[in-house]
Amino acid sequence: MALRIDYTNMMGEVVSGGVAADAWAAAERAFRDARAVFERRRASGELGFLALPTDEQLHEQSTTFARDAEGRFDDVVILGIGGSALGPIALRTALLPPSWNMLGMDERVGLPRLHVLDNVDPRTIGHLLDRLELRRALFIVTSKSGGTAETMAQYLVVRDRLNRVLGDAAPRHLVFVTDPQKGALRTIARAGAIPTVDIPAAVGGRFSVLTPVGILPAALVGIDTAALLAGAGEMARRCTGERLSDDPAGVFAMLQYLAHTRHGRHVQVLMPYSDALRDVAAWFVQLWAESLGKHRTAKDEGVGPTPVAALGATDQHSQVQLFMEGPPDKTVTFIAVNERDAGGDVTIPHLHGDVKELGYLGGHSLGDLLDIEQRATAGALAVRGRPNMTIHLDRVDAWHLGALFMLLEIATVYAGALYDVNPLDQPGVELGKQFTYAQLGRADAEQARQEWNMLPEPEPRFCV
Amino acid sequence: MALRIDYTNMMGEVVSGGVAADAWAAAERAFRDARAVFERRRASGELGFLALPTDEQLHEQSTTFARDAEGRFDDVVILGIGGSALGPIALRTALLPPSWNMLGMDERVGLPRLHVLDNVDPRTIGHLLDRLELRRALFIVTSKSGGTAETMAQYLVVRDRLNRVLGDAAPRHLVFVTDPQKGALRTIARAGAIPTVDIPAAVGGRFSVLTPVGILPAALVGIDTAALLAGAGEMARRCTGERLSDDPAGVFAMLQYLAHTRHGRHVQVLMPYSDALRDVAAWFVQLWAESLGKHRTAKDEGVGPTPVAALGATDQHSQVQLFMEGPPDKTVTFIAVNERDAGGDVTIPHLHGDVKELGYLGGHSLGDLLDIEQRATAGALAVRGRPNMTIHLDRVDAWHLGALFMLLEIATVYAGALYDVNPLDQPGVELGKQFTYAQLGRADAEQARQEWNMLPEPEPRFCV
Repeated sequence: MALRIDYTNMMGEVVSGGVAADAWAAAERAFRDARAVFERRRASGELGFLALPTDEQLHEQSTTFARDAEGRFDDVVILGIGGSALGPIALRTALLPPSWNMLGMDERVGLPRLHVLDNVDPRTIGHLLDRLELRRALFIVTSKSGGTAETMAQYLVVRDRLNRVLGDAAPRHLVFVTDPQKGALRTIARAGAIPTVDIPAAVGGRFSVLTPVGILPAALVGIDTAALLAGAGEMARRCTGERLSDDPAGVFAMLQYLAHTRHGRHVQVLMPYSDALRDVAAWFVQLWAESLGKHRTAKDEGVGPTPVAALGATDQHSQVQLFMEGPPDKTVTFIAVNERDAGGDVTIPHLHGDVKELGYLGGHSLGDLLDIEQRATAGALAVRGRPNMTIHLDRVDAWHLGALFMLLEIATVYAGALYDVNPLDQPGVELGKQFTYAQLGRADAEQARQEWNMLPEPEPRFCV
Repeated sequence: MALRIDYTNMMGEVVSGGVAADAWAAAERAFRDARAVFERRRASGELGFLALPTDEQLHEQSTTFARDAEGRFDDVVILGIGGSALGPIALRTALLPPSWNMLGMDERVGLPRLHVLDNVDPRTIGHLLDRLELRRALFIVTSKSGGTAETMAQYLVVRDRLNRVLGDAAPRHLVFVTDPQKGALRTIARAGAIPTVDIPAAVGGRFSVLTPVGILPAALVGIDTAALLAGAGEMARRCTGERLSDDPAGVFAMLQYLAHTRHGRHVQVLMPYSDALRDVAAWFVQLWAESLGKHRTAKDEGVGPTPVAALGATDQHSQVQLFMEGPPDKTVTFIAVNERDAGGDVTIPHLHGDVKELGYLGGHSLGDLLDIEQRATAGALAVRGRPNMTIHLDRVDAWHLGALFMLLEIATVYAGALYDVNPLDQPGVELGKQFTYAQLGRADAEQARQEWNMLPEPEPRFCV
């Protein structure tokens, strides 16, 4: 079992727009400083995600709940948004068979379907609720703060239906994943005898995939949660911070940072060549964007790279033209999978051997084709002076996915130190929230209402 | 029925990083020049997509095929990648009920499921093929050139299975959507009595959603293709190019171009507040990235904005922190839906009225919440000096979707003229293709093989 990073094509001696050898050599010192910030944050208890792999009590909350729930539910529905949804979605896509929710009960070996309501679009929510057998459904309400507007709105709609259909049994179809002490969900759970599972206070939403936010639904659908945590734990141990080139999170963060700040590569693409990993890229976009996209008060300036999700080979026919020939402002990080599931590959048959556009394909496998396209794209980008690196996973399984999550989470904290921002907050979303409260008439949003009502009313510009 | 653009928040007098009033006033001339390029391209027959709304013969190819296929198929599977997949996926998500493929035959009113295989991942393809009832399945093989490696590989795998299970009846489970004259698919169709539907020679892949690439699958699943084309036709007539501020495609393209070239806003986000429109954003990313991300030979430089797909309200909890506080290098274009389907909205019940984090939500609808969040986010971005605009659709239906596609396609050709690049080619993907052919041993890739084999072998850099 292994995860390795090939960053040959990130280096200036290989790729014209890459990181210069002397800058890389000199980066050891900046890395030491970043690691010191990391250690300070850890010591002050801010990096709760590091402790998750060894928090057996927390893990047991999820596995116990899942064991008790066995056989009771055909559908598990997560109500959550942002970090409460992206982790579970990534886990589902990576570790369950494709189109899990379309499979019959036998193929799901009795395990429930898994739905994630990550928005408040009435069409999606109404459609799902109208079709669920509520008596066989479990709703996981996930909100660290316990007050997220979208999730609370979903909960109210669901709760009302449960009350009407199931009466007093409604609480047995709910579980709240929330802060151990604080917040509205915690209060409601206490008053209403609703089971709860904890999100540790020291783990923020976008770092929460290995808390019950991801682990509880994973356990409910039979994913090997112990392997997820073991992979993450192994990665946490590997990222010692001792030597930059031995620390995979350090290598990832430092290369992105140098490529950005020294070479203008401020768009940073994550491009797995694996359908199973496509939603890991969306998960990473939140992690990287919300952690690093910050106003840096000291210099009164906005900083942070723009992460972009892509999928190979699909995006070779969409975004790669821009990556190859557009402005030299991007890095591309591929994720490649070394071994396909035993028997999971598909051989391309020898057919139409006389047609030159098809004949050369026969005898190769689809997995080979995918791998060859990844190498071809990496090579072509390098030839054109576009820095890129590849994270190699032995296979897509719980262990490797846990390791990948932990790698990118630690890298995010390193990058926060390099960019000199706090990677753990998100002050920029507060104003939009307040303006929403103001329009909805939330009682404690008086100040926001005044601000909203006093916004200038410029001459409108319409094209009708 | 209407589509209007509110670009108030793109202007410098409203938003500090917006387009200055004098620059906007002076843009009329640049727009005239861009329109002249557009007219030249149209006159020389390059803009085939403009003629699609009135090409009744072409439309009839799809509707006739769909009528003949009625009742014969439970599953329609598109084999295609890039432009051959993104259009159909956007149509499916927008115009079919959510989770269409999970619905029973009765809810689908006898219409088939619709699958799109947009990659060559063996796990996805094997999984689907193992579960399909081939006797009730239709495979649409879509490739303009008729030789796309990924699509040909899929076709070979499918064809082999069809031959083995259905023997001589295999061709009746295939239809090729390809160039009217040229390419390998055309040759195979002629020799093998396989039905075909045309992609007009003058319409490139990413402009092909309103050719049979999108229209044939749409017709097969009961989408109102006439309304799609009517909406597109109405938009084509509206984009007269006479006055910039009256031409919605001109307004969109010129504002993005000015925001980029004068104000450094080179990341351009499309953010619908509607689950139904989420895949329109992915479709737009290809259109904008592949059309404008180019090497401009005259100045030997790479140009083109980076399009980013987002979804409201979901991405308020992911990317919006970066949009609000990160570098001032982005524009955000929202898509808002004015009217929800009759009966399609969901009222949030009055429950937990005593809890301040929930009580204010009761009585509002989920649709209201979504709309309010869109306005709040637009307002908050404006306050922080982040230019944004909103495309308002009366509703999500075939007519409005057709209009939206046409708006963005025309805007792309305008933007090509403004950026001084050819928006209709994609030379940058050729090298990666050649390197793929080289490794697979395609006979006519000798030169690529030499180039691939002669790539320098730098000192590898691994973090293991």
